Amino acid sequence: MLAERAAAEGVAAGDVLAVAHKVVSKAEGRVVALAAVRPGPAARALAAETGKEPALCELILAESRRVVRRRAGTVICETHHGLVCANAGVDASNAPEGAVVLLPVDPDASARRLQARVAAAVGGRVGLVVTDTHGRAFRRGLVNVAIGVAGFEAVVDHRGGRDREGRVLVATDQALADELAAAAGMQMGKGAGTPAVVVSGVDTPPGPGGAGALVRDPAHDLFRT
Amino acid sequence: MLAERAAAEGVAAGDVLAVAHKVVSKAEGRVVALAAVRPGPAARALAAETGKEPALCELILAESRRVVRRRAGTVICETHHGLVCANAGVDASNAPEGAVVLLPVDPDASARRLQARVAAAVGGRVGLVVTDTHGRAFRRGLVNVAIGVAGFEAVVDHRGGRDREGRVLVATDQALADELAAAAGMQMGKGAGTPAVVVSGVDTPPGPGGAGALVRDPAHDLFRT
Repeated sequence: MLAERAAAEGVAAGDVLAVAHKVVSKAEGRVVALAAVRPGPAARALAAETGKEPALCELILAESRRVVRRRAGTVICETHHGLVCANAGVDASNAPEGAVVLLPVDPDASARRLQARVAAAVGGRVGLVVTDTHGRAFRRGLVNVAIGVAGFEAVVDHRGGRDREGRVLVATDQALADELAAAAGMQMGKGAGTPAVVVSGVDTPPGPGGAGALVRDPAHDLFRT
Repeated sequence: MLAERAAAEGVAAGDVLAVAHKVVSKAEGRVVALAAVRPGPAARALAAETGKEPALCELILAESRRVVRRRAGTVICETHHGLVCANAGVDASNAPEGAVVLLPVDPDASARRLQARVAAAVGGRVGLVVTDTHGRAFRRGLVNVAIGVAGFEAVVDHRGGRDREGRVLVATDQALADELAAAAGMQMGKGAGTPAVVVSGVDTPPGPGGAGALVRDPAHDLFRT
């Protein structure tokens, strides 16, 4: 449906479609009623420490490799995808009453499926980004980021290029898919919910994509531990 | 000159102009020849530890409140503005040979000055964002962020709004100025250098602005220390 609508609304070859993960998660059945969850001892301990519901903590722990930081009201986790985010992405907003929405099991696979359908409907090359809103270390406010990417390379490597002075550029990997997601985030709003936004006019490097390119290797991450 | 050109190129009321800090810094004389810098003992120690030039380390330390993380090849600092970024923003790319460019002393003041000029030339309300490219904890690749903001509020507070299910939204401060900067970053390129980008069609909340709203209070930051 998304694919047909994208084509009907004028998505064209070269465009990138950004889709809020929440609609993807819902379509993939990643909605859990909290009443159906039996919290174990670790979840009950995390709940006591943070003031969050034990059932919510059970889901957060199930979605996580590990808890990176915790304190009253806040749990920052590393998800099984390697994302570092609040509550391992488990979120009640825009969920049915008494339920929460989890992140897609494999957001890159979700992005690839959607990308293939949209590209077929449009009849040309398109990019697809599955997005989520994340907090950041050091900076206030949430920004929309890419958690699934298909149809273009998520990170652009400018190394070896030259600056205006003719000097060779170093350390200039650009997180293009995150910039695309952020641009789309400005039009997605929060409560009202515009779950898909088309970004046009951006030169995306060809490639299969994959949001794994946006996840810093824990061994090279100075802040993860 | 930027203001007249912005008006001539069709910047209109309601638009936001994103300007790469490097052109602002250069216009403000924030260019330092490394040969003119005398590194002190702390800079020499940091240079020995990281492999960076002692003169560069002297400037990095002068621009910093403190060093947040250091290791071979990498120094992450908290600048006097409260920004956490590599090398305290001291950067050789697009600088004259043998020189480096520092961040503006007060990027919000720079943004206010430019905003006033552009607004006068355009004859209407405009927003202005001074940008830099930052690395992030947890995520690979640089993104363009806002280090100076004028003419609109940098963070949008959606709390008290409602989601599609009618639930009251919590914890949904949106870092709009960073999303604007990221969107502009897609068109700025790296080496070639498009130092100013116009963003149209974004609903910006009125207010004086200020990028301080984007800096997480160190007391509430789980990763700064």
